Amino acid sequence: MEPINLAEKFSLIEHFWSPKIVAEMNDSYVKLGKLKGEFIWHHHENEDELFLVVKGELTIHLRDRGLVLHEGELVVIPKGVEHCPVASEEVHLLLLEPKTTLNTGTEINDRTVQAEWI
Amino acid sequence: MEPINLAEKFSLIEHFWSPKIVAEMNDSYVKLGKLKGEFIWHHHENEDELFLVVKGELTIHLRDRGLVLHEGELVVIPKGVEHCPVASEEVHLLLLEPKTTLNTGTEINDRTVQAEWI
Repeated sequence: MEPINLAEKFSLIEHFWSPKIVAEMNDSYVKLGKLKGEFIWHHHENEDELFLVVKGELTIHLRDRGLVLHEGELVVIPKGVEHCPVASEEVHLLLLEPKTTLNTGTEINDRTVQAEWI
Repeated sequence: MEPINLAEKFSLIEHFWSPKIVAEMNDSYVKLGKLKGEFIWHHHENEDELFLVVKGELTIHLRDRGLVLHEGELVVIPKGVEHCPVASEEVHLLLLEPKTTLNTGTEINDRTVQAEWI
């Protein structure tokens, strides 16, 4: 039960698209990720997912439109909704999602990573 | 499913110690609160609670020590742990907690509020 400094934790992250766990609460993890470039289309069968942009500008493509999140903005992508995050420049992102959540949702491929604690 | 701008939402909050709901995910609410002064000692029987300081400096007294959270720092207070938040100057706080969470925990008194959406 110690304060977690987001900037310090972000400085420990080396790779894009590989979120790390920094805290847990109830059945969820708080994860931090650095993003740059385009991810893949995916959805989560049973988990809503919260995205909070800490730095940069993140576009989340949905099938019918795109959401643009600036620093200090958040959105919840409900379970079942297909989405594809894109970061033209580096983005620092805080994610909150159930512990069961896989980064690529129902897809298992070379972008799939098992999140570790930092 | 629209981006939520934290600064805009904070500007709608008039009263200290009365967090408002801005988003829901799974069984939890994201709440924003303005704090100033001292709250009361309380604990939550079944809910871990996440505090993320968006602005200012928040002290969370625990029975055996105090935690100081600066802007950009978070902490999870696990269920059952008695705590008392204190803000000597105005603090803007993001809270994440199960929907069942009452601000005063197991205590019901004149500081108890039912959170509403903004």
